[in-house]
Amino acid sequence: MARLVTVAGLALVLGILIGIGAVSLDRATQSPEARAIKEPDNAQNQNAVVEAPGGRITIRMASAAPTSAPQIGTMAVVTVEKLQVASDGNVEIKLFEPNMLAPNAELFDKVSNGEIDAVWSSPNFFAQRDSVLWLFSTVPFGPSASEYLAWLAYGGGQELMDATFSRFNIKPIVCTVLPPESGGWFRREINTVEDLKGLRMRFMGIGAKVISRLGVETVALNGGDTFHALQSGSIDAAEFSLPFVDVRYGFEKAANHYYFPGWHQQSSLITMLVNMKVWDGMSDAQRAMINNVCGDNIRDSLAEGEVQQVQALQEIRQRGVKVHTLPKPIMDALKASWIQVVKEESAANPEFKKVWESFHTFRKSYAEWRGLGYLP
Amino acid sequence: MARLVTVAGLALVLGILIGIGAVSLDRATQSPEARAIKEPDNAQNQNAVVEAPGGRITIRMASAAPTSAPQIGTMAVVTVEKLQVASDGNVEIKLFEPNMLAPNAELFDKVSNGEIDAVWSSPNFFAQRDSVLWLFSTVPFGPSASEYLAWLAYGGGQELMDATFSRFNIKPIVCTVLPPESGGWFRREINTVEDLKGLRMRFMGIGAKVISRLGVETVALNGGDTFHALQSGSIDAAEFSLPFVDVRYGFEKAANHYYFPGWHQQSSLITMLVNMKVWDGMSDAQRAMINNVCGDNIRDSLAEGEVQQVQALQEIRQRGVKVHTLPKPIMDALKASWIQVVKEESAANPEFKKVWESFHTFRKSYAEWRGLGYLP
Repeated sequence: MARLVTVAGLALVLGILIGIGAVSLDRATQSPEARAIKEPDNAQNQNAVVEAPGGRITIRMASAAPTSAPQIGTMAVVTVEKLQVASDGNVEIKLFEPNMLAPNAELFDKVSNGEIDAVWSSPNFFAQRDSVLWLFSTVPFGPSASEYLAWLAYGGGQELMDATFSRFNIKPIVCTVLPPESGGWFRREINTVEDLKGLRMRFMGIGAKVISRLGVETVALNGGDTFHALQSGSIDAAEFSLPFVDVRYGFEKAANHYYFPGWHQQSSLITMLVNMKVWDGMSDAQRAMINNVCGDNIRDSLAEGEVQQVQALQEIRQRGVKVHTLPKPIMDALKASWIQVVKEESAANPEFKKVWESFHTFRKSYAEWRGLGYLP
Repeated sequence: MARLVTVAGLALVLGILIGIGAVSLDRATQSPEARAIKEPDNAQNQNAVVEAPGGRITIRMASAAPTSAPQIGTMAVVTVEKLQVASDGNVEIKLFEPNMLAPNAELFDKVSNGEIDAVWSSPNFFAQRDSVLWLFSTVPFGPSASEYLAWLAYGGGQELMDATFSRFNIKPIVCTVLPPESGGWFRREINTVEDLKGLRMRFMGIGAKVISRLGVETVALNGGDTFHALQSGSIDAAEFSLPFVDVRYGFEKAANHYYFPGWHQQSSLITMLVNMKVWDGMSDAQRAMINNVCGDNIRDSLAEGEVQQVQALQEIRQRGVKVHTLPKPIMDALKASWIQVVKEESAANPEFKKVWESFHTFRKSYAEWRGLGYLP
């Protein structure tokens, strides 16, 4: 019998993720937090179940982020619900909290070999497997959402993404887009590139490689630890997430200066990664429903993401934090550093080089239109 | 028996629209143009057919634009096809070319009274019925797509839109978003507000009210007539459409100066307008499938729209046209004029005033986030 459990606190979002259970649908009107329900353990031992060709299918999907985490987790719950309604139960996804089906570090291998049907994640969670995965998730000084989507759909990006993941026996479906992150929290104002030198800063992902070239000592910490380290002064600064997430962690109590823009993460793609055999085993209608729901999620997450940040900024300002824009010389130095990182990654990984060239060529031709077509 | 016919030439897109027939799905791999198929005439006399509660439904939808017109028409065909696949035939839309089911001018009344099940259109096509419809389709100096979607989904816009259309017994579903139009073609360079005075310019819609306050004599012409009037010099300038559409009309042969941005139309919403009784008669799954397909269309049209304009600009440049940005004093004068138009429309129509206030309040709070969050 299913029973309610309390979901992971936000302090664990995006950090070290703990497991909770499968998400059921019988609390559709409640908040995502209230809907997390533990399924009987034997659910973990059943792979994708298809009743008949084109018939009802049940898919086990492991989320790499707690389903309570704004957008990166909540949109997984939304996906399950939308599919439930649109398919009238024909496509059922059993959604599992992080580390329930397998430790997060093993999810990629397990969806690849078919032990798990699907994983909900940003590809960058698995970028240690292949650095090219960065380019399919979030890119420093990269595009905002509609340009990213344009590259994927009409600039050759999706074909490259499919080819990359097919090496791992996985079908990737972009299913949510996150808006820009913030540039980070600082205990003191920074005005020059010189001010960055020697700072200890929490920084995750490929952005850490970029900023460390400017003399910043980067450290990897999860959410709760980041807050305490910043508050106590054992670190001087921290990039974390979207303003809406930052404010739920209370970062405005730990530092007084909040910088923009988030040059390291202008938009982030969240994906359903489906084992290829499971994907191929579905009917055309089932695959189409998943594609349509994921496309609709992108509309939804774009809209929701924009609104959430507006509210969060107002809240952060009201609490006395100074909101700054990063000075141009610092932005220029970061950009120059990013170009060096790209050169290194391209030299080290031919796949990275190939995808980067597609991405970069597309962006160059897009730049004129972006500059001309849109109001300043 | 169905037979192939040639669809309307692009010269008629968005101008005076002629009718062709219903669009069938049995040429799914061909171009939208090649897929237009004439259905037997008796199809015109059947309203929405539901076989059983939740069972197969057939909906007759009249497109207000030729289905060959980039995005504004082609996305109607895409919608029909996506629904066909996702529902496995459970939701069938019979799509009719302009003026086939009824003259375009009567579509709004006929979907309102149930003579037609659904209409594919931008709400601005019907703004003579109520000026508030402008605010649900395209707004001078208005938002780009993701901000518009944010207002609709989380800023109260969709509720206002539903309330407005429910007065007409219609359920509106935003189903495609067009990227910015161009600012227009000019036979001579314009450098000052003074240069606009006395120009004869093709200009449609609410933007015409704005620019005419600066001394421009606006004229309403369809596509083919606009091209010839501009080439012959009987008009001095013309706003028309997106660069991708403009170049298919060959406007680069009629004028040498192409101006940006399209201040009058930064993004445009295209909707499925469904008779309320037909909408209410569908099952939850059927309504969900339509919502999901329309959301996915927005992802798709955003991506496609961006790419098409990039290609078109390159083509236009190569043909020797000078591409300009409108000088700031002209943009400032147009914006001041727009504020006057808003005051007049608000005074004349309480509904316009109410929706404008929601829209404007949302945009003010969004402005800080847009300025901070995104790379310059």
